[in-house]
Amino acid sequence: MPSLLELDACEAAGRIRSKALTSEALAAACLARVDARERDVGAWQYLAREEAMAQAREADRTPSRGPLHGVPIAVKDIFDTHDMPTTLGSPIYAQRQPDWDAACVAAARAAGAIVLGKTVTTEFASYHPGKTRNPHDPTRTPGGSSSGSAAAVADRMVPIAFGSQTAASITRPAAFCGVIGYKATFGELSLSGVRPLAQSLDTLGFFARSIADIALMRNVLLGAAQTRVDALPRSPRLGLCRTAAWPLAERSTRDALDVAVASFRAAGATIVDVELPAAFDALTEAQQTIMTYETARNYVFEMMTCIDRLSPSFRATCEAGMRIDRETYLAALRRVREVRAQLPDIVGDHDALITPATRGEAPPIEAGTGDPVMSRMWTALGNPTLAIPVPRPAGGLPVAVQVVANLHADPMLLEVGEWMSKLFRQPQSST
Amino acid sequence: MPSLLELDACEAAGRIRSKALTSEALAAACLARVDARERDVGAWQYLAREEAMAQAREADRTPSRGPLHGVPIAVKDIFDTHDMPTTLGSPIYAQRQPDWDAACVAAARAAGAIVLGKTVTTEFASYHPGKTRNPHDPTRTPGGSSSGSAAAVADRMVPIAFGSQTAASITRPAAFCGVIGYKATFGELSLSGVRPLAQSLDTLGFFARSIADIALMRNVLLGAAQTRVDALPRSPRLGLCRTAAWPLAERSTRDALDVAVASFRAAGATIVDVELPAAFDALTEAQQTIMTYETARNYVFEMMTCIDRLSPSFRATCEAGMRIDRETYLAALRRVREVRAQLPDIVGDHDALITPATRGEAPPIEAGTGDPVMSRMWTALGNPTLAIPVPRPAGGLPVAVQVVANLHADPMLLEVGEWMSKLFRQPQSST
Repeated sequence: MPSLLELDACEAAGRIRSKALTSEALAAACLARVDARERDVGAWQYLAREEAMAQAREADRTPSRGPLHGVPIAVKDIFDTHDMPTTLGSPIYAQRQPDWDAACVAAARAAGAIVLGKTVTTEFASYHPGKTRNPHDPTRTPGGSSSGSAAAVADRMVPIAFGSQTAASITRPAAFCGVIGYKATFGELSLSGVRPLAQSLDTLGFFARSIADIALMRNVLLGAAQTRVDALPRSPRLGLCRTAAWPLAERSTRDALDVAVASFRAAGATIVDVELPAAFDALTEAQQTIMTYETARNYVFEMMTCIDRLSPSFRATCEAGMRIDRETYLAALRRVREVRAQLPDIVGDHDALITPATRGEAPPIEAGTGDPVMSRMWTALGNPTLAIPVPRPAGGLPVAVQVVANLHADPMLLEVGEWMSKLFRQPQSST
Repeated sequence: MPSLLELDACEAAGRIRSKALTSEALAAACLARVDARERDVGAWQYLAREEAMAQAREADRTPSRGPLHGVPIAVKDIFDTHDMPTTLGSPIYAQRQPDWDAACVAAARAAGAIVLGKTVTTEFASYHPGKTRNPHDPTRTPGGSSSGSAAAVADRMVPIAFGSQTAASITRPAAFCGVIGYKATFGELSLSGVRPLAQSLDTLGFFARSIADIALMRNVLLGAAQTRVDALPRSPRLGLCRTAAWPLAERSTRDALDVAVASFRAAGATIVDVELPAAFDALTEAQQTIMTYETARNYVFEMMTCIDRLSPSFRATCEAGMRIDRETYLAALRRVREVRAQLPDIVGDHDALITPATRGEAPPIEAGTGDPVMSRMWTALGNPTLAIPVPRPAGGLPVAVQVVANLHADPMLLEVGEWMSKLFRQPQSST
């Protein structure tokens, strides 16, 4: 029997339901893990130790509230919580106490989840990093902006955590920390209770250690019936997209993609190279234009009233954004829209595309949270994505493959993801 | 010289800039108007009397901060303000004090505006009405959800006010109260600091008594240079869209549209009937599906923790929304997307479309805030719209024409709007 900390949310919830495990024991194990590791990892902005234990004991005494009954989760500290401060990673809001739960937090709690605390985010989910370190190597970044959520799940402190992505804030920390990162189709899962960074790009997602958990949380947020995600019942047809950013891919990413392609092919997948039309090459820049333009207009209050408490890099972003004019911004939006219209044809007969998740392994922590270049275009397009860790040679840090499906094809994406991660779980892999 | 209360924001700002008027005198006049009329109108949720007067005196002592320097404005009470409560029209949040200003409030203040207070909204900008009455007839509704903003501008309490629209929450109160209502292209103006009702539909806009003021505020929010809106320098080409909802149009709306068409034609406009393809007929229902589905998932926290403090109608909306499944929701989104793709061809060579703004005059206040049927489709499509009051026979309550332009063609929409309202300002009209 695996340690309690190895359980995913589905398994944990099942055992709690069948009384084979108490929520109290699970919450205590999670908190003990936090106690043992937090000094090195720094995943938490706020820990609701007593409240979580009280809620766990309460869960053990009461009938099941839903599919997450008694299961501890973590919440990125840009999601409002009515009972915990929500700082957005900024000293300006160190004392900020919202009056409500973000929609996703409320839905998770309605399904019985216990929020263990708030995880570290970069400042306003932008670039300026928080205190979190990569659980696999404390000299490396965990990636950002959902740094603490990825690190907490990777370090077995919780089975599942909320994150959000505007450029690469789920895919990159998931890849660097070696967990599954899911970004939903743009707009499908509500960000109510989350301060916008860039409204045309901000997207909800989660970190987990199994696709089953991603599906579970997704159904909770949709208010949908819980159905098991099965692996795609046949070998997938995959399009391999190296994209125009391929020359930036490091050895580790190239190797990981080779390993992934070889494993998928060996298991029967059909994989063909997909050359993206030239219009795609402009998307990375378009994403940056949209993000910078919108961020500047979303943070006028802080720029006006407390500019000296913003990081120099965030201030510079806001200043640069105000210099972008509307025509440039609209041209970027138009470019994204045009490419989006071509996408169904490009994804075409493939079940999903596969593409690099990051340039390589997590860089040294001094260098920031890593380059978002491999994800910017997919965030702009709004497609659902998964970062799935690829087995690495001994000593290697985590690297992932990014899996992309058509807009709103999230259920298919999860089936493909389950097919892949099942394959990687098999003993022949070198995890 | 017109009374201070008749000045629009542009004129008031110009006089304050040239020292022909003090901000203090203008703010005092606005507050005196509120004192005289508030008992009958009930436009305000919160009035920042002393703070506004102090800020006005401060504005008179200091160099101009921007194009709204010293001008009082009103803010719908779903927009966060760091120095005033923001209740969202719900008793649940009667004491709620946000930590920041919504992006639009911050931008207006950065340009020198003085927020006089918060205006009444229906509960969560949904259907359950607040205390506001129609300034033209206290037995009638002012329309909703931006009830107080429309009424305050109509009643000369402020020259300009923020609102938002998810179904018809700008167009309808503007039409019922007889002021100009502008809904921006979806997504172009940030709703940061505004709790979402339905994220695929929620759109920012404002109420004013001149197109010049709409343009002024728009440029402030965009961080763009202030340029005068000139009326379209030629007679516009307009498409007349009666839409599938035409049989619901009452005598007053039919008459107003006739008057508008006759005036526009007499002034040289080319107007042709535009028959919308059958696909448009499904949009009203699609908008309702999307709105109800998303609202339910955005208000889980309140449904879980304080359901008894929600109005029965809001509760019923949330319950109905949870019963809508994802396939139905996605089909509605798809329908909207498909029609949106056809729009540029339909708007075609027209500068704008004209269509009814409401079914008729403001209904009795007991009947709710009026039917949103004439606006739902345009909100779903995301097109920018203007409600422009049409001169009525003596004794008639206000009715408006709704003007619709292509996505992101807001500047063209304002030029057409200025052409129209200039025409309606001329003496031959019966205002």
